[in-house]
Amino acid sequence: MPEVKVEELKVEEVKVEEVKVEKEKLLGDYSKEPQRWPLFVVNAEQPFNAETPPQELVKEFFTPTEKFYVRSHGPAPDLNAGQFCFHIGGLVDPPKAMTMQDLQALAPKVTVDAVLMCAGNRRNELKAVKPVKGVGWELGAIGNGSWGGVPLREVLRHCKVDLDSPHLHVEFVGVEDCEEKTKYGSSIPMCKAADPKGDVLLAWEMNGKPLTRDHGYPLRVVVPGYIGARSVKWLKHINILDRESVYFFQSRDYKLFIPSVGWDTVEELWDLAPALAELAVQSAICEPLANQVIPTGTAATVKGYALSNGHRITRVDVSLDDGANWQVAEILHQDSREKKGFESRYWSWSLWQLRVDKFPSPCTVVCRAWDIASNTQPENAKNIWNLRGVMNNAWHRVKVSA
Amino acid sequence: MPEVKVEELKVEEVKVEEVKVEKEKLLGDYSKEPQRWPLFVVNAEQPFNAETPPQELVKEFFTPTEKFYVRSHGPAPDLNAGQFCFHIGGLVDPPKAMTMQDLQALAPKVTVDAVLMCAGNRRNELKAVKPVKGVGWELGAIGNGSWGGVPLREVLRHCKVDLDSPHLHVEFVGVEDCEEKTKYGSSIPMCKAADPKGDVLLAWEMNGKPLTRDHGYPLRVVVPGYIGARSVKWLKHINILDRESVYFFQSRDYKLFIPSVGWDTVEELWDLAPALAELAVQSAICEPLANQVIPTGTAATVKGYALSNGHRITRVDVSLDDGANWQVAEILHQDSREKKGFESRYWSWSLWQLRVDKFPSPCTVVCRAWDIASNTQPENAKNIWNLRGVMNNAWHRVKVSA
Repeated sequence: MPEVKVEELKVEEVKVEEVKVEKEKLLGDYSKEPQRWPLFVVNAEQPFNAETPPQELVKEFFTPTEKFYVRSHGPAPDLNAGQFCFHIGGLVDPPKAMTMQDLQALAPKVTVDAVLMCAGNRRNELKAVKPVKGVGWELGAIGNGSWGGVPLREVLRHCKVDLDSPHLHVEFVGVEDCEEKTKYGSSIPMCKAADPKGDVLLAWEMNGKPLTRDHGYPLRVVVPGYIGARSVKWLKHINILDRESVYFFQSRDYKLFIPSVGWDTVEELWDLAPALAELAVQSAICEPLANQVIPTGTAATVKGYALSNGHRITRVDVSLDDGANWQVAEILHQDSREKKGFESRYWSWSLWQLRVDKFPSPCTVVCRAWDIASNTQPENAKNIWNLRGVMNNAWHRVKVSA
Repeated sequence: MPEVKVEELKVEEVKVEEVKVEKEKLLGDYSKEPQRWPLFVVNAEQPFNAETPPQELVKEFFTPTEKFYVRSHGPAPDLNAGQFCFHIGGLVDPPKAMTMQDLQALAPKVTVDAVLMCAGNRRNELKAVKPVKGVGWELGAIGNGSWGGVPLREVLRHCKVDLDSPHLHVEFVGVEDCEEKTKYGSSIPMCKAADPKGDVLLAWEMNGKPLTRDHGYPLRVVVPGYIGARSVKWLKHINILDRESVYFFQSRDYKLFIPSVGWDTVEELWDLAPALAELAVQSAICEPLANQVIPTGTAATVKGYALSNGHRITRVDVSLDDGANWQVAEILHQDSREKKGFESRYWSWSLWQLRVDKFPSPCTVVCRAWDIASNTQPENAKNIWNLRGVMNNAWHRVKVSA
């Protein structure tokens, strides 16, 4: 495998430092926010962070765009696609700028169906164990979309990037002015970026229509199987680097520590922990809702979602007695059959249900999923508590009243 | 993607049925077994099934061949490499036969370092919950080897097999006369068989020397990241199929069910359950041994292994108080640096240790591993009990006496 000889490249500028937001006064300008779905569960208004109510998640395989959770770090950019261009720099000779027209002419549009999920999804269950920092998400910081665009791989190939180098990383920087006083930047390893089966897209379409402002108009990245934080919206820069991005959201924010690490001890540990990337096996109950009343002995259906970083979900187990006994749920909708040979490309979620003739209320309903690699979820949130409250995939429990 | 048009191929014979063992009298002929390491923990003499003592596992990154666990289903075949040939059939036109010389001339030899682990490793912990069928393994049905051979992909390409078809499976059949009254057969999906990063080998070398009889001399398959049962020894037939193998070891034996499924109810469920393939995230404690005495307050080191179907192990946590508090273990040896860009090719195990200055004996030591996808192990074996006793990756617990 040929190594990239950095010294031989005439690189104009390797963007290694975070681009500080120049106009700090803009940080607070929320006067031009787009209209939003009134039924969102809004966890923060400015920047806007809102999730989909659980029962809406399981209504359709593809989450309607207007109901799709929104994770913002600043005011929603309002860009003009006609005047828009993005730049490919770093270890690229020569650096390039591309308009949307350039991009769309580069290769045929492809469509990739994929879940996006925030690493903080289900954070509130960790908060209930012990306080954590971060937006308080229930189980709705997730949605399944159909994304249209050009494979990132084609853009990299066009720029003559060495697709086979295991040492390279691809950094994405958006135009968003984040409350963290930086632009939004993040990266993925080349092995994912260049993998034809990795299905990473530069996307301008969501569910068959142009991206909306909240979802990155006019251009975003979609990194199937990875935490949502890598699917950078309002994409402006793609930088080829010989190390991970040093942006806050890669180097500091989305990392996992053992329960004993607190804010007093984490500082020296950040650089030792790997940045979160692929999503673990996950499932959650969307119906019944927490504390819902189901009269004892009546019929009801338990519904939910499951996913595992592109691995096929092979089984979802449901317990009506807090994990003592299990039944196998029916998988209603999963990625389509022609993909089934590729056990690693199940990018959409699996929606599932279990019909219960006589609900044993009051009771605690629990779900857990299994993937094709026999990975399953850990039992208790308290055992996987971490100070950032990320990657909670403990058994999901819902108490039902009689 | 072009579909394989089965009807257009002049296939001489698709081997779809199990090859029944013709000479049943041979089943019992164990008079010519090879010499074996005297320190093996022997779980069954005929067929020979033996594991490595835990403390031997963590002595070296590569498990010495003579100490490498042996999983047999019948007498060890005694083949002559000079007269040996194997066959490629099924959806291949024309079918081919190859000698070892043909194979070695086909492509340059490559070396792949990979763990092999029996799906039944750690079965005894499940047996302690409730009886299960299968050889009683502790935690030593695992070893890390360096394998030399030719990529399976090259052989398939040579035979003009469609490497891109997601519908195809590659079946391997060995010459072993199994006590289950069949030859040993199994299969993997084409997406694994043909993946250049899947690293599936037809191997004739183990740790730099020709395979020994117990490990498949003269030729075996090595399927990195998959359960050991797919790495068929004494390989005789490779069949390209448009479905999974129907051999017992694929269609019946290595499958996972919920705890409530027993031998009275499993029959109609076999065909609904997926065959085990990739290995889940796993770790186990090799030192101290179960019930070992470590005087209270003395220094001791906890050592073990961890792996996750080729995913990088990012953290191993050790608890000295049965999971209430955790410390991060030091990872001593992992796949080499040049592979680190490929987060999916960590085929070897990670060996780890935690030095403890003052051991709090008596106590229960626990370990759990995390991989790059943030998957971790479930807490309790009782929750993942299954009637075949496979894929036990619950937290590994070792009681230490004072």
